[in-house]
Amino acid sequence: MTDDERTEAPEVDVAKERDEYLDALQRLKAEFDNYRKRVAREEAVLAARASERLVRELVPVLDDLERALEAANEHEDAKLEEGVRLVHRSLADLLTREGLVEVETDGKFDPHSQEALLAQPSDAEEGTVIQVLQKGYKLGDRVLRPARVVVSQGSNG
Amino acid sequence: MTDDERTEAPEVDVAKERDEYLDALQRLKAEFDNYRKRVAREEAVLAARASERLVRELVPVLDDLERALEAANEHEDAKLEEGVRLVHRSLADLLTREGLVEVETDGKFDPHSQEALLAQPSDAEEGTVIQVLQKGYKLGDRVLRPARVVVSQGSNG
Repeated sequence: MTDDERTEAPEVDVAKERDEYLDALQRLKAEFDNYRKRVAREEAVLAARASERLVRELVPVLDDLERALEAANEHEDAKLEEGVRLVHRSLADLLTREGLVEVETDGKFDPHSQEALLAQPSDAEEGTVIQVLQKGYKLGDRVLRPARVVVSQGSNG
Repeated sequence: MTDDERTEAPEVDVAKERDEYLDALQRLKAEFDNYRKRVAREEAVLAARASERLVRELVPVLDDLERALEAANEHEDAKLEEGVRLVHRSLADLLTREGLVEVETDGKFDPHSQEALLAQPSDAEEGTVIQVLQKGYKLGDRVLRPARVVVSQGSNG
């Protein structure tokens, strides 16, 4: 009998362990599946919320623009001009809060953040930016749009 | 011998199964942990990317505004006016693509999407909107801002 028990005991334990592991495995699988589904739903909501925040901030800019348009319709040029300045300031401030910064264009041409559309003879040192044709913008480290520039070829002769 | 084999076989199977389940459980746990960490990182990136997309679309609007400002500085009023119309159209289109819609103000006052700032005697049916003081906006079903309106009290007498 003692021999029998000794051989039976580990067998029972192993079966019990096997059942516990299987049970834990199935529960974890179900939990993981639910988590994956929840994440998919939440990601859609999250993206929507991030743009909603910005859209909400743009509504007053649209209001200001419409007021400027009314001034234009009534040929109130001073009011129109003032309106445009206001809209510009609001939008520029909003974008600055979002992290938008202008690409710097002082000094040497930088191929990472600038695009050279032309090279021209100039008194400025060769390879420096002498004119900005279109402003460039960065968001954090990322260049959203390179600055389009004219680069000096140095003085010819 | 046949008897021995018969009793030993299931025991070995059970132990093998237990080991397999434990192994699967540990692998799934590790996978789940990694997934959770990845999701946390991705959600931050996702929110940033959603606003980045909008910021990127707003850069040309800012360009147009700056051109309008230049026209204002040079007192080219026709060009300024044209510029403001262009900016307005771009921004309005962008916001429409994002799902922004104006709150309707035709007909009966709707407390869910409108705010009554005034009630005035009018020939219009009592409880209808007779004037819009500020446009309201919805994003999907959500009211971002109620329309501010004047409501008819009906004709007095």
